[in-house]
Formats: sequence, C-alpha cells, structure tokens
Amino acid sequence: MVPSEIRALFAMVARPEVVSLAGGAPYVSALPLDAVGEMIGELVAGKGAEVLQYGSAQGDPGLREHICDVMSLEGIHASPDDVAVTVGAQQALDLITKIFVDPGDVVLAEAPSYVGALGTFAAYQADVVHVPLDEGGLIPTALRETLARLHTEGRRVKFLYTVPTFQNPAGVTLTTARRAQILEICAEYDVLVIEDNPYGLLGFDGDPMRALRADDSSRVIYLGSFSKTIASGLRVGWVLAPHAVRAKLVLAAESAILCPSNFSQLAVREYLATQPWREQIKDFRELYRDRRDAMLDSLDQLMPEGCTWTRPAGGFFVWLTLPEGLDSKAMAPRAIADRVAYVPGTGFYADGTGHRHMRLSYCFPEPHRIREGVRRLAAVVEQEIKLRDTFGGAAQSGSTGVHTPGPDVV
Amino acid sequence: MVPSEIRALFAMVARPEVVSLAGGAPYVSALPLDAVGEMIGELVAGKGAEVLQYGSAQGDPGLREHICDVMSLEGIHASPDDVAVTVGAQQALDLITKIFVDPGDVVLAEAPSYVGALGTFAAYQADVVHVPLDEGGLIPTALRETLARLHTEGRRVKFLYTVPTFQNPAGVTLTTARRAQILEICAEYDVLVIEDNPYGLLGFDGDPMRALRADDSSRVIYLGSFSKTIASGLRVGWVLAPHAVRAKLVLAAESAILCPSNFSQLAVREYLATQPWREQIKDFRELYRDRRDAMLDSLDQLMPEGCTWTRPAGGFFVWLTLPEGLDSKAMAPRAIADRVAYVPGTGFYADGTGHRHMRLSYCFPEPHRIREGVRRLAAVVEQEIKLRDTFGGAAQSGSTGVHTPGPDVV
Repeated sequence: MVPSEIRALFAMVARPEVVSLAGGAPYVSALPLDAVGEMIGELVAGKGAEVLQYGSAQGDPGLREHICDVMSLEGIHASPDDVAVTVGAQQALDLITKIFVDPGDVVLAEAPSYVGALGTFAAYQADVVHVPLDEGGLIPTALRETLARLHTEGRRVKFLYTVPTFQNPAGVTLTTARRAQILEICAEYDVLVIEDNPYGLLGFDGDPMRALRADDSSRVIYLGSFSKTIASGLRVGWVLAPHAVRAKLVLAAESAILCPSNFSQLAVREYLATQPWREQIKDFRELYRDRRDAMLDSLDQLMPEGCTWTRPAGGFFVWLTLPEGLDSKAMAPRAIADRVAYVPGTGFYADGTGHRHMRLSYCFPEPHRIREGVRRLAAVVEQEIKLRDTFGGAAQSGSTGVHTPGPDVV
Repeated sequence: MVPSEIRALFAMVARPEVVSLAGGAPYVSALPLDAVGEMIGELVAGKGAEVLQYGSAQGDPGLREHICDVMSLEGIHASPDDVAVTVGAQQALDLITKIFVDPGDVVLAEAPSYVGALGTFAAYQADVVHVPLDEGGLIPTALRETLARLHTEGRRVKFLYTVPTFQNPAGVTLTTARRAQILEICAEYDVLVIEDNPYGLLGFDGDPMRALRADDSSRVIYLGSFSKTIASGLRVGWVLAPHAVRAKLVLAAESAILCPSNFSQLAVREYLATQPWREQIKDFRELYRDRRDAMLDSLDQLMPEGCTWTRPAGGFFVWLTLPEGLDSKAMAPRAIADRVAYVPGTGFYADGTGHRHMRLSYCFPEPHRIREGVRRLAAVVEQEIKLRDTFGGAAQSGSTGVHTPGPDVV
C-alpha cells in the first residue's frame, strides 16, 4: 500500500459503520466525568498558581509518592526519588532508548512486540532481535538461546524490552515461574530489563501479578502509565529506574520538554488523593472483562476452523492466527470494505514477519459491536479460505518493516 | 561549584526571604482562576470522552486553527496543516535539532542565547557559534562575517536560532530594518532560521512586531508557546514549518510521546474560544510593564557606576553588565547570602564566556519586591567593586559550559 491508500483506509476505519477492533484506546467514557470535572475545576480555581505553573523536570513530588503507592499493588517497594514522571510511558521508552542505544546495538523484544516501542527502537537505529512467546509469555529457553548466540557473535545487547502482563499485542502473561527464570537469564548475561506494564492492574481474575521489578531493583527499569487506568488524554506515565539511570533520564527529559505538565500531573495527584480510584479500576476491569468475554465467545462460535487465538486474562487484546496461506495485511482492505477493522500482525514485528497474525482489541467497542465485528471478520476469513482453496495461497503482501504507531494502534 | 553546592544554592533561592530575580516563571496568578477553573470543569464534564482520550500526533485540528489566528497578530498567514502542537516550544526545539543536526554541525545562536536551547544543542553535539547582538538585536554585519568565515572553513551550518523579540536573556528586540537584512543574509548562505517567539505578544508599547516568518514561509521555522500568554503548566507550544519539515516533525513527535495531551490542548482550545484572551494578554502586558518599570527605575537609582543594562520593551528580562573585573558567577553565592538571586551570564553562552553579565527577571516578583531585590543587588555589587579596588580583579570563576536549564531559568 502507498501512503495515500493507507490514509484512505484510515479514513474508512473512522466511519461509524465500521466496527474497529484496531484501536487501543481505553473506554474513558466509563469515568464519572461529572465528578472528575468538578474535581479538576476546583483544583484549578483553588491551586491555579501551582497547577498552571512550570514544575520540576523530574515531576511533582506528591504525584511520585502516589505512584509508589500504585506500584506497591504489584509488590514494588520504591522511593519517589527514583521515579520520573514522563509524557506517557512512550516518552520514558524514548528517553531510555536515547540514553542506552547506539546505532546497531541489539535490543531484544518479544515476537510480537508493542508497535510504539518498535518505532522508537527503529528511530535510534537499534537492531531488534525478536524472542518468541507463547501462552505463558516470553519463552525462557528461547531467550537463553538467543543471548548465547548473540554472545557468540560478539553482539552488544543493550536490553530486553518486555510487556510481561496482558501483553500488547498478544494478550498473554508471563507466568510466575518464568518471571524468575527471565530475571536469572538476564542476570547471567548482564542484560537490562525494560518492564513495560500499562495493563498490570487490569486483570480479570484475582490480585495483580507481581512485577519483575519487585524482585530485581538493580536490573529492571519499570515503565508505568495512567493512560489505561485513569485517562490516556492526560499523558501521564512514569519510569522507575536505578538512581544513576533516573538522574540521566531527568536530564534528558529536561532537554526534551523542560518539564512535564503540572496541569496533567496535579489532576492525577488530586484524582488519586480524593477519588475512589481503586473502585474505578475495578469498574474498568469488569467492563473490559465483559468485552473480553464477548470477543472470546464470538470467536469460539463464529471463526472458521484453522484460526487460533489467545485467551487474555486482562488488558485489551486478543492475538489471532489465521490458517496457513492467509495474509492479514492483504486481507485488511477487504475487511474494512466489509466494515470491520483490525491491526495486521506485521506492525508488531521488526523483521517483516507476522502476516498470518492480527491484533483484535476489545477495549473500546461495546459488547454487541464486538460480536458484530467478529461476525463480519469471520465472514471475511471464510471468503479468504475459499479463495485460497480455489486459487492456492494468497500472494503474500510486502513486508512493512516498522512504522510509527499512530494513536489508533497504541 | 560542585553539584552539592549548586543544590544548596537552589535550596537557598527557594526561601521566601530571598528575592529571586532568577526565574522565568510567568505570573499565572493574574489569570481569572475561578473562571478558568469553571471553564475546565465544564469541559471535562461535557466533553470528557474527547478531552481524556488519545489524540493525533500532530495535535488537535481545532487548536491548530486557533493557533493560526494567534499568529496572524504577528502578520503570519499559515495553514493549520503546517502547524504541529508540541509539549511547550522546548519539544519543538528538541525535535528540530534531532532532525537537522548531526554531531559537529554548526548552529548559530545569539550571544547570549536561551539556556534551554543551548542545552538541547549540546545534547545533540552541535557546535554552537555565537553571533553578537546589541540593543537592536542580532547584528547583521556580524552574522554575515560569521557565515563568510564558516563558509571559508567549509563548515556545515544547519540553522540560525534566534529569539528576535524581547529576547531571552538580553531583553532586546531585532529592529524592523534588521529583520529584512537577517532574512536576506540567511537566504544568501542558504541557512534555515529557527524563530523562537514566546514573548512576541507581551510588548509594552504599540502593536506586536511582525514575525520573521511573516516575510519568509520557506526558510523560517517558527516556534510559539502559550506558556507566557496563557499558562506554562499546560505545556502547550507549537511549531509552524514548511510542509515536508512539519511531516518529519510529527513522525519524530509520535516516536517520542505518541501524541500531545488532549487535556491540555482542549483546555487551551476552549480558553481561546470562550474566554477574553486578548484582554487577558493586555492585562499581562500592563502587569509586566509595571514590573519592568519598577526594575529599571530601581536600577537607575541604585546601581553603582560602571554597571549597564538593557531597557526591554516587552517580555521578562533585563540583561545587566557588571564593571570590568567583576564576575557574576563568583558573586552569586554572596548575592544569595544577601537574599537576592539572579542567573549568572555564563549559562547563556556555549563558549564559557559571560562572566560579566547577569539576567534579571521582573516577571514573577511584585514591584516592591523587585525594588528590594535591586537594592540588595546594588549593595552586593558595591561591595564587589570595593573588593576589586582593594585586592585587584576577582579571580574569574571557572567556565560552566552549557548545563540544562531547570525550570527556574526558563
């Protein structure tokens, strides 16, 4: 596809008659908007001199204390002094890559991995080496083999980038047993771990998983975000890093943006201090669980034989694999013509693979729309299977390589 | 000074008994905070689904239209499509430098120049070459000589960075006649111009100056900001650039932060659409003019012979030059001990000079505090002159080189 075709496609996706299973936008309408509006209005009227003023490059100290409380839900004990507030976790990822990666350095990432991270790694000319995952998350033996091979080749591995919990795009979660193994292997090869955890509190069953950072404070740099638990439009994320790294990150942030917005930060601080945020996250979990159920039920009922998909226990995404000979990227324009959108798998690989996969998100559309979207998708896939059986395998679409994410595929 | 001493100094400056003429923080308390709070509260309650959601990487289209209206006050005719919203103008500066500058490339900047720009140029390993200014702003003959010399040396000049109106830190403004000359010289040597204009609407007399960008849309990249005209805590700035550059900037912004905050952007959009912002800027102008007058009157009355300073017609800053043999950086701890703070001139030069200069800001303290601050400063300078006369010239402090700005010296 040429850029004009992509733009035309995106214009189609935005039409109300298209069910978009593509976007990663949280359902912020579920927030108590009247109460939040009142809280923010009073905050500006009462503390405007602080809310509307420059702040420190590291971020508001009071907010950083609240952030430590939030992280304690995942077993993390940290000092607010080791936290830096960023413009979403994306900025933390950008600054970390800027600081650690020289062109040609290796960065390890799950296969598949978050498209926005791959875009940032490409911007700094990192060489992304993928490590496969399965239903239990990143596969430790595969990580060890990859590190051993790279070590033999004399390659410099800067870090492992992982979304261990409710992964984007695969929807899988690293098991507790594997968490220990991953940390052990990274220690053995002296590789940093970037733990990106925007969905950790959005699990559908039981308590939050224990973060990797909870068991290794010197090797793990933790990225968090309020984009999915409060609101993405605030652009408030954070990084928790060993002290020397945190200091470098703050200097880099100062050069990049001077300081994060006090307006956004203090809105979050006030929200955490005065609103029932734990209950609100519980509401979000139930809402997303209903939508996950709607998607899995419809997939079970409707998708043709030969398709497989993951069964997420939290977060926003299902990862679907098409039968052999089908190509999600080539199929995308036909799906949109039939009024359903998804993100082709190719965007989540730096190596041009992923054609048989797609990401389906259930975070934004209402359950009946999800069911309708899956119904349309199943029909498109059935058509593709018939075409394949009649004419042989579909010609594979060209490899995309990495493109920047676009907020629609967060 | 070692870092611990600098921290101790900053801790001193924050004490209420110290009059800080150091910071560049706007006096946001002058905003009608009740009305702004009410406006924002209603915005969140009524349009929360948009305000709290991800937006586009380029920034909100409605806000970009308002930005074009704002720029039209300076003679600029532009399309919203050529505008990208950024996290303050600082982010625009960072992205521009990232896109254009390779290590060792030359960037031209006024002597003195904005400390935050020098920090960013240093981060990308630019070689900053200063061009002197005087009361009429950047000196065209000096610019021509510098470009001719660099051309002869075969150096690659990437752009001229200039704050033409109410300059930070010098407080001077490029004359109309010189504006044409600067554009002509840059065209002759095919050098881009980065016009950074946060203070343009804060002139104390008559209409706003015509922007450089108003007379050259292909060579000038214009940076704007609401930090000084509305509120710095929102972190909303923008860049207006030729189409191809704008496209690259948006891709770079997407990789760096995904998208700017809708929360901040739509607050600004709503403010511009519903509040009397032109009258508010007029109020700010009058407030800052009173403070400028307080500072200039006190300097005239109190500063010892041998000191000279600029007479700003707008903006936030006076640039003061000490008598020969005095060193503003060496003097800073003694000034703070005597309860007055300023920014030593060395921060505004990439070449280690500036010891005889200091930046005095009148934007934040109330007029009676400004007078008291100048009284204390005059006494410190008098002491220094006596010391110099008794013991000979003070030992010059070490060169600082560039450090990152810190919000206190914006």
